[in-house]
Amino acid sequence: MSTEYQKLLGRVNQINDLGKAAAIMYWDREVNMPSAGSAERTAQMTTLSSLIHEMFTSDEMGELIENAAAELVGADYDSDEASLIRLLRRDYADERKLPAEYVARSAAISGQTREAWVKARAENDFPHFRPWLEKVIELCQEQAEYYGYEDEKYDALLDKYEPGMKTAEVRAIFESVKAELVPLREAIDESSVKLDDSIVHQPYDIDKQKAFARYIATALGYDFNRGHLGTVVHPFATSFSRNDARITTRWYPDFLNPSLFGVLHESGHAMYEQGTHPSLARTPLARGTSLGIHESQSRMMENIVGRSRGFWQAHFPTLQGYFPEALGNNTAEDFYRAINKTQPSFIRVEADELTYNFHIILRFELEQAMLNGDLVAADLPEAWNDKMQALLGIIPPNDSEGCLQDVHWSRPGFGYFPTYALGNLYGTQFFETATEQNPVIIEELAQGKTNALRVWLRENIHQHGKKFTPGELVRRVTGKPLSHEAFMRYATSKFGDLYALN
Amino acid sequence: MSTEYQKLLGRVNQINDLGKAAAIMYWDREVNMPSAGSAERTAQMTTLSSLIHEMFTSDEMGELIENAAAELVGADYDSDEASLIRLLRRDYADERKLPAEYVARSAAISGQTREAWVKARAENDFPHFRPWLEKVIELCQEQAEYYGYEDEKYDALLDKYEPGMKTAEVRAIFESVKAELVPLREAIDESSVKLDDSIVHQPYDIDKQKAFARYIATALGYDFNRGHLGTVVHPFATSFSRNDARITTRWYPDFLNPSLFGVLHESGHAMYEQGTHPSLARTPLARGTSLGIHESQSRMMENIVGRSRGFWQAHFPTLQGYFPEALGNNTAEDFYRAINKTQPSFIRVEADELTYNFHIILRFELEQAMLNGDLVAADLPEAWNDKMQALLGIIPPNDSEGCLQDVHWSRPGFGYFPTYALGNLYGTQFFETATEQNPVIIEELAQGKTNALRVWLRENIHQHGKKFTPGELVRRVTGKPLSHEAFMRYATSKFGDLYALN
Repeated sequence: MSTEYQKLLGRVNQINDLGKAAAIMYWDREVNMPSAGSAERTAQMTTLSSLIHEMFTSDEMGELIENAAAELVGADYDSDEASLIRLLRRDYADERKLPAEYVARSAAISGQTREAWVKARAENDFPHFRPWLEKVIELCQEQAEYYGYEDEKYDALLDKYEPGMKTAEVRAIFESVKAELVPLREAIDESSVKLDDSIVHQPYDIDKQKAFARYIATALGYDFNRGHLGTVVHPFATSFSRNDARITTRWYPDFLNPSLFGVLHESGHAMYEQGTHPSLARTPLARGTSLGIHESQSRMMENIVGRSRGFWQAHFPTLQGYFPEALGNNTAEDFYRAINKTQPSFIRVEADELTYNFHIILRFELEQAMLNGDLVAADLPEAWNDKMQALLGIIPPNDSEGCLQDVHWSRPGFGYFPTYALGNLYGTQFFETATEQNPVIIEELAQGKTNALRVWLRENIHQHGKKFTPGELVRRVTGKPLSHEAFMRYATSKFGDLYALN
Repeated sequence: MSTEYQKLLGRVNQINDLGKAAAIMYWDREVNMPSAGSAERTAQMTTLSSLIHEMFTSDEMGELIENAAAELVGADYDSDEASLIRLLRRDYADERKLPAEYVARSAAISGQTREAWVKARAENDFPHFRPWLEKVIELCQEQAEYYGYEDEKYDALLDKYEPGMKTAEVRAIFESVKAELVPLREAIDESSVKLDDSIVHQPYDIDKQKAFARYIATALGYDFNRGHLGTVVHPFATSFSRNDARITTRWYPDFLNPSLFGVLHESGHAMYEQGTHPSLARTPLARGTSLGIHESQSRMMENIVGRSRGFWQAHFPTLQGYFPEALGNNTAEDFYRAINKTQPSFIRVEADELTYNFHIILRFELEQAMLNGDLVAADLPEAWNDKMQALLGIIPPNDSEGCLQDVHWSRPGFGYFPTYALGNLYGTQFFETATEQNPVIIEELAQGKTNALRVWLRENIHQHGKKFTPGELVRRVTGKPLSHEAFMRYATSKFGDLYALN
């Protein structure tokens, strides 16, 4: 290994370790910290992030990257070394594009905007939020100019979350989804079949939920020997290394779904990080490719596997054993139908597998309109409601359950939302390829097992970490670019069966 | 506030925050981390400590300190500013004294020595440990030369843990303790009174132990709104700020004392950090004065308060309510007597309040002999057993229960041990002064309350953090230097009563 590359790697390891320290502080804050400790923890975390930014954007870092790159000319594209250089060059260029003045101003405005949003949502007072949203839109526009773009402004922001993906590409895919998913949603609305999900809304002892969560996450393939489950208010997954990738959840005493499917979802994220190749340790390659690809793993485990008939035919008896009073008189099929009820609803985070996509498409379209100046903040509520009507056939009773519901627009993070729906699409396309290449995956799932699927995911996706862009990865794995087709085949088949549409 | 001082403070805050990040990583490692995550966590923590060392020992740091000091000439000795300059100058000078080569070599040898110690203790094989102990002794001798000393070598090492204290001073105090404590121990041995501690060795449900631990720590004054209780193998206390000072313990299903008195002990440490003045935040002043002074707070809460008759007369009924099967037929007096049984024993960490001091005095004397070349490693077991006989009247059946019992001598940390016993002495001297100055403290304790004591501790000790040396603090608070007298008055009175010696 080259001397220049070793020098670079030493610095990369150091910066990576500081980032993991910050991640541990974040995890601890959410799971353990007494709220009184908040102010000093914020100061500590700010010190870490400033130091990381300073080290990573220094001229010295640029020289380290270029010196190592010069030595590695001709290295195999897939090699750890060449992949690290590509990633560092991209991130280094990006991080130096935002002026320090902008970063500080943006952070200050975001803090105030968040407070305004909390109040506006609580009091259903959009006019209170409007001037702050205007500032956020301006910050997004300014950010897009700093990052730069060729075709359209939104590209500059989307690229931060889904590197290399173009807005036009997402737009075309989402249009295709809409064209097929709206009719499917309408057919379900008109179906005489009505699914009943009352069995998941019953008393469920929290200690037993915790025990079952460990059982089912282990069955899914999450490795507790290299992980940990914490309790939080806002669930997330995080990793400090491939050998310490953690999940979190919250617990409700009378509603089974949030913790059960939350754990499956976060396990999907954490299994991705647990599966990165050991040779990528202590580098930024030891992470998921992008938010969208990460979400493909969580959604696959939560929905494609975790809401499948086969998986619950195998595991329902165990669930029943934990909760005989709630589920003693039900069959696996009852449970399968209860957890797959689909119905238009107002709140994104409570939406089901099928209608969730509409919530994202709506936000993607509104973000572009606001960024391009085609929609001003004052007109957001009306535009929101029009799109809800068009996509979901319902209109929220107020803005708190409409355009004020998400925290996201209190910070200049346009471009983040589409990754949620892209995750659903990537996930089904990957899963379809996996089952074509290895039919044993389906046989195993019907027995509640995921070994073959995990081997396939590790081989084709997890081990590579962040070596490739999402576009590269999806082509490499599935042989074609991302499209809506696998998802629509999956959704049409699954929900067509559940709602007797044929 | 001066510009130069502000510059210094900015850098101090940054280094402090990195140190707290490392402390959080340590806490998380002990409480939550899956053991598989160990290697990468070690790498991450090493990165932090190297960076902190590099930043703190830089020439730039020296300039920042001296520039600020020049501006602050004439500042009040007690002021935050002058105190910070004093502490930084001392630590800066110290940290630059050890060559990087020594630090790396010492760390490498300590790692190997620890492995040898684990094996030697498990197999009762002192000869296996001997060559490693020789290396540790050499490292201590080398370290003493780097730090430098005027009177005797041991001063150089002791000063790291108890700044400003001289070996001769500790020796004189310990000699006085021996002169009075050995006869007291012998009188107890000969007393016809035999205390029975069988009631603490019964089944105690761990969930109930946890609930009672929260109750009793709160009664003691530990603030859970600014703290957290974690479960670990090796208990400790730590703080990330005065608003997030944590305690840990371990739980035994059939022995009440370790967790109960462990929690009181760690609460004493954490209450100290919770009580530092807010103006010291994000500086190294926001900590306890020294290990010995810190131990005075933990031992005071564990023993002087936590093993007092009055405290348990108030709280025993609650304990009984948690454990009616174990304690239903006992009185508060039974419990008081059970938790104060004293008896010579081999293992330091299991020793009682009174005999504990002998274990420390023995180690203090042996460390000096080894450091000065008066005792070679090969002769340690015999020297150990001779001193056990002289001080405690017993001889361990093997070296595993003798000179191999502690991990401490597998690293070059001579000078640490005496702080444990100094804590007992400081604690009683402080407590005697406190009750002289405010007799309400005793009245409250008899009702199980500690408000007046806490106010006194905060005013006289806690708020100052690390502003003063232990010697300065003890004179300032009690009007005299540390001596054995208060401890002997306390021990003679308490155990004289318990064992009917008069």
